[in-house]
Amino acid sequence: MSEKTTEKASSSLLSSINSPADLRKLPVEQLPQVCAELRRFLIDSLSKNPGHFASSMGAVEITVALHYVFNTPYDRIVWDVGHQAYGHKILTGRRDVFAQNRRLGGLSGFPNPDESEYDTFAAGHASNSISAALGMSVASRLNGDSPRRNIVAVIGDASISAGLAFEGINNASNTPNNLLIILNDNDMSIDSPVGALSRYLTHINTSRLYNDMRYKIFRVLKRLHLVSEARRGALLRFNNSLKSLLSRQQNIFEGFNIRYFGPFDGNDLPTVIRVLNDIRDMEGPRILHLRTTKGKGYAPAEADPASWHAPGRFDAATGERAEAAHKEGKPLKYQDVFGNTLLELARTDDRIVAVTAAMLSGTSVATMQAAMPERVFDVGISEGHAVTFAGGLAKDGMRPFVAIYSSFLQRAYDNIIHDVALNRLPVTFCIDRAGLVGEDGATHHGAYDLAYLRTVPGMTVASGRNEHMLRNLLYTAQRGDYGPFAIRYPRGAGKLTDWHNDMRVLEPGRGEKLADGCDVAVLTIGPVADDAAQAVAEARKRGVNAALYDMIYLKPVDEEILGEVGRKNCPVITVEDGTVNGGLGGAVAEWLASNGYTRSVTRLGIPDRFIPQATPAQQHQMCGFDADSILRAIMSAAAEGKDPK
Amino acid sequence: MSEKTTEKASSSLLSSINSPADLRKLPVEQLPQVCAELRRFLIDSLSKNPGHFASSMGAVEITVALHYVFNTPYDRIVWDVGHQAYGHKILTGRRDVFAQNRRLGGLSGFPNPDESEYDTFAAGHASNSISAALGMSVASRLNGDSPRRNIVAVIGDASISAGLAFEGINNASNTPNNLLIILNDNDMSIDSPVGALSRYLTHINTSRLYNDMRYKIFRVLKRLHLVSEARRGALLRFNNSLKSLLSRQQNIFEGFNIRYFGPFDGNDLPTVIRVLNDIRDMEGPRILHLRTTKGKGYAPAEADPASWHAPGRFDAATGERAEAAHKEGKPLKYQDVFGNTLLELARTDDRIVAVTAAMLSGTSVATMQAAMPERVFDVGISEGHAVTFAGGLAKDGMRPFVAIYSSFLQRAYDNIIHDVALNRLPVTFCIDRAGLVGEDGATHHGAYDLAYLRTVPGMTVASGRNEHMLRNLLYTAQRGDYGPFAIRYPRGAGKLTDWHNDMRVLEPGRGEKLADGCDVAVLTIGPVADDAAQAVAEARKRGVNAALYDMIYLKPVDEEILGEVGRKNCPVITVEDGTVNGGLGGAVAEWLASNGYTRSVTRLGIPDRFIPQATPAQQHQMCGFDADSILRAIMSAAAEGKDPK
Repeated sequence: MSEKTTEKASSSLLSSINSPADLRKLPVEQLPQVCAELRRFLIDSLSKNPGHFASSMGAVEITVALHYVFNTPYDRIVWDVGHQAYGHKILTGRRDVFAQNRRLGGLSGFPNPDESEYDTFAAGHASNSISAALGMSVASRLNGDSPRRNIVAVIGDASISAGLAFEGINNASNTPNNLLIILNDNDMSIDSPVGALSRYLTHINTSRLYNDMRYKIFRVLKRLHLVSEARRGALLRFNNSLKSLLSRQQNIFEGFNIRYFGPFDGNDLPTVIRVLNDIRDMEGPRILHLRTTKGKGYAPAEADPASWHAPGRFDAATGERAEAAHKEGKPLKYQDVFGNTLLELARTDDRIVAVTAAMLSGTSVATMQAAMPERVFDVGISEGHAVTFAGGLAKDGMRPFVAIYSSFLQRAYDNIIHDVALNRLPVTFCIDRAGLVGEDGATHHGAYDLAYLRTVPGMTVASGRNEHMLRNLLYTAQRGDYGPFAIRYPRGAGKLTDWHNDMRVLEPGRGEKLADGCDVAVLTIGPVADDAAQAVAEARKRGVNAALYDMIYLKPVDEEILGEVGRKNCPVITVEDGTVNGGLGGAVAEWLASNGYTRSVTRLGIPDRFIPQATPAQQHQMCGFDADSILRAIMSAAAEGKDPK
Repeated sequence: MSEKTTEKASSSLLSSINSPADLRKLPVEQLPQVCAELRRFLIDSLSKNPGHFASSMGAVEITVALHYVFNTPYDRIVWDVGHQAYGHKILTGRRDVFAQNRRLGGLSGFPNPDESEYDTFAAGHASNSISAALGMSVASRLNGDSPRRNIVAVIGDASISAGLAFEGINNASNTPNNLLIILNDNDMSIDSPVGALSRYLTHINTSRLYNDMRYKIFRVLKRLHLVSEARRGALLRFNNSLKSLLSRQQNIFEGFNIRYFGPFDGNDLPTVIRVLNDIRDMEGPRILHLRTTKGKGYAPAEADPASWHAPGRFDAATGERAEAAHKEGKPLKYQDVFGNTLLELARTDDRIVAVTAAMLSGTSVATMQAAMPERVFDVGISEGHAVTFAGGLAKDGMRPFVAIYSSFLQRAYDNIIHDVALNRLPVTFCIDRAGLVGEDGATHHGAYDLAYLRTVPGMTVASGRNEHMLRNLLYTAQRGDYGPFAIRYPRGAGKLTDWHNDMRVLEPGRGEKLADGCDVAVLTIGPVADDAAQAVAEARKRGVNAALYDMIYLKPVDEEILGEVGRKNCPVITVEDGTVNGGLGGAVAEWLASNGYTRSVTRLGIPDRFIPQATPAQQHQMCGFDADSILRAIMSAAAEGKDPK
């Protein structure tokens, strides 16, 4: 296929396709060329402007076939996660703006209903497609849509292993609907998938004889117009008997009353189109299992799909990656500092185990896994289970460190409260990608963790201003006996070249004064302390003396610092890479107001709206908490402070 | 069985059992008498002091058998939800204090590790047992516990259908462990269970021939010492082949690499004990499927198990219930006002559909279901799916009203953000049992919803001070176009006898001034307005004029009221039936501080700790927001207001 791709890249069917309607005008024979051109377009574009590469390459045939067979946008495709939906974006009128993918003012890196009517539902957090599509399918029935509106959910083999997807499947046969679930099975999530369902999907091949035969029988019956709702039950029973004869393999999905078709080769376009045509108009929920190759059509990506999930810039001809491994003398990513420190601590404490949820390499828990695999648990896309499982581990003597991205930890909010905090279990939450995450945009920001964790009784919530402080906090959590302990840190590189300090305990509830001053008091948490320090220094040059405090702990909050700040009786500014509602700013405003201190508090942070894709620096500026914005806030507060309302 | 129960009730084996060790000293022949006495004890006790009745009655044999066969507390039993765990409490040293079940200072109504070492993990929120027990089982391996420590999760057929339980099952075969899952299948949750898995469990009976035969073969092999780890694979394959021959039924659990045993009669004590002995020492994860009768041993409960789930007080001899249906002239429960209003609105608007998650009767969504079943969706214990499914329904033109208890809605936090709020979908969240819930205690309070919803962009958050206002808010959500709209209301009866007002729109962001005054300003949200009004009236008698505002909307907050309050320059008191961190008090403190108003704010509400079981009135007092506490706060603030810091 990759040969063919290169060969036909010069022709230009793709440039004539401005919507799926254009695609549907083509004869089916030309579709392989569309696929080839689409792949070439992806390679050309993503080699220059980085994005999610391998998933979309693998889903090219599925994408073309879906828009060819279904009448989109009347029929609806719900993409799960959306890493695989670049081809879909390109075929649905966004080819010419695709160069602006993941950029400020450009395209979202995920399907986004605000961007296109072809993007039917929010995507980014795995495993919501079945539930959302089921809702649409039921709505279509209730609306009495005519002609029948087809709803298709496209979900990967890792996403389908999450509890939410299971709940969707469990409910899919409850209500009359015509939901079609396409299982895009490339035996990959970002890392290798885990869990029994994943193994099950791998081995389902052994029942190919049965599935092939059954599909052929189905086609014959269909041609003879013998497939009807009334006969469906009988057919299913017949199918199951046949299966019992031909295969020792059990089909889980049919146990859930969802008709199963597959597995078929999802990179074989004629097959995909034929099967989709065959099952398109069937009644009731169905699942079509397609095997695809992640990175298909680009040899380097096929050879190493995990590292080509989001490869950064690369040379299209050679496959050489621009952003290679870490360069000596440059600061490490926070993730690597965390991963190395976790292993360092684990070597000194047998009780430490690590739990993550399909973010083994993303969180750098992989570092510990390589050294002590028996103490590392990647539970797949199962954030709720990750936290409750950690609760069980902690209950019987372990010290679990649970590493999950902030925006996904939202999925385990109840587990944090009920299964960890209620019994004060010593689980350390290592909250990766906290704050604004840049190019991944609105779905992926870790905006809410400070606010939603602060309300949980007994929870310690902390964030260090640099890599050394992150290490100190991890050390503190391991050494102490504080119950649940949350440590947040951002995505990407820190600023220190020598990250490996001698770790020390940072007493919970104690912040640090970084600068003294009486005109304004600036209180921060996390790496924004650095921007605040710049702003404070600049303000000093302009004659305004601002005190600067790194609170370190949001909870317990440092009441000594707050008392000192209150007594200064000067304007207060809080800065955090988190929602301005309910986080550090809220805690400070609440404490000052409760204790009768009576000065204004300016809260800088993520405002009360969804922040679109851009670089982190652009986002900080957009939200008003970059160094310049902090400086302006200091100068303005100082002016008001001299002349209060 | 119920005959026998009565017959033997006078004897007193039970009174000699002060721990499971005492139970294990008895010969197996005496255990049926223990069961009978336990049932009699439950009937006697719960007829006087209400609690969860039918589940515990059905689980008597399982409870006795588990503590007999396993070496508790060294071996660990993890009860899911815990409605069924009263027998366990009685056998584990809490018989004499059981009369104080669910009372202030007494026993928690759920397993509670703070109460007993036999209660191994927090219970109350369904479906966490498998994940938690898996954590314990893995911890035990890592600890190298010797002798082997057995871990048993006991989960109901409704609980096992939740995504979290699925995630546990999906991960159970990932790591070496000896987890035993007991599926206590009474074909009931509080209401009838829903979903494909539930239907599957019902029909698994058809494979009884196979399962019986397989179990017999297993016993023979075991007796011959032919069961070993090495042979286990071969045995499983043999089993599957046998199954293919004997049954057309597929076993989902074995698809997940968990050995399946059952179904057996879980009320047949000798069988349960025999099977438990047989499989106790097996390696690897196993599931034992026991069929039980909810309410077993008490005829009225067996006949109508749903209504005997938590029957209130009853006459043990006749089964007559003390707390019967609603009495004419008394205020309805908020739930009934909601249920009736939902149906009333749905009759006027075809777009309205209702979604709930195994809380059909609890939320009174049952009222609408009875009238228009095709527009009501009970998705089982699947809160995440409920919200995302509602998002899909809303996306295609419906107006879903999602009725979920506050403490369970925590499970759908990410779904609210990602699948509803991000695309401003018009889903109305009807948040039942918001605030302190009384006897169910710490696990069930709806303490956090105000705080965690306030941080979600575009979310409207409201609570009415009485039943009319609840109706007005529901009407407002239906009539307007506000995107996601959350309406919270408490558990239990309101205060109005004439609940059926003419509904009117309450403009979002507008509160109401209920009393004027300049000494203190009291701001409330929800039914606590009533207590605040009493306090304000009493304060007036004592010479303190407090203004009283019902904010109605936490978000958008009424800035006109806040400006007025700020300009009064008097002490401010906020009152809410929710956490004092980040809710109304937080919003008010933040707004005043941001806008340069400089008076103290006293935040009354649920303090930053877990609140144990008690009556709601006791809890309000304990937390300091009953009418007396509010009065004290007003008087104290007024005194300080005259002489500020």
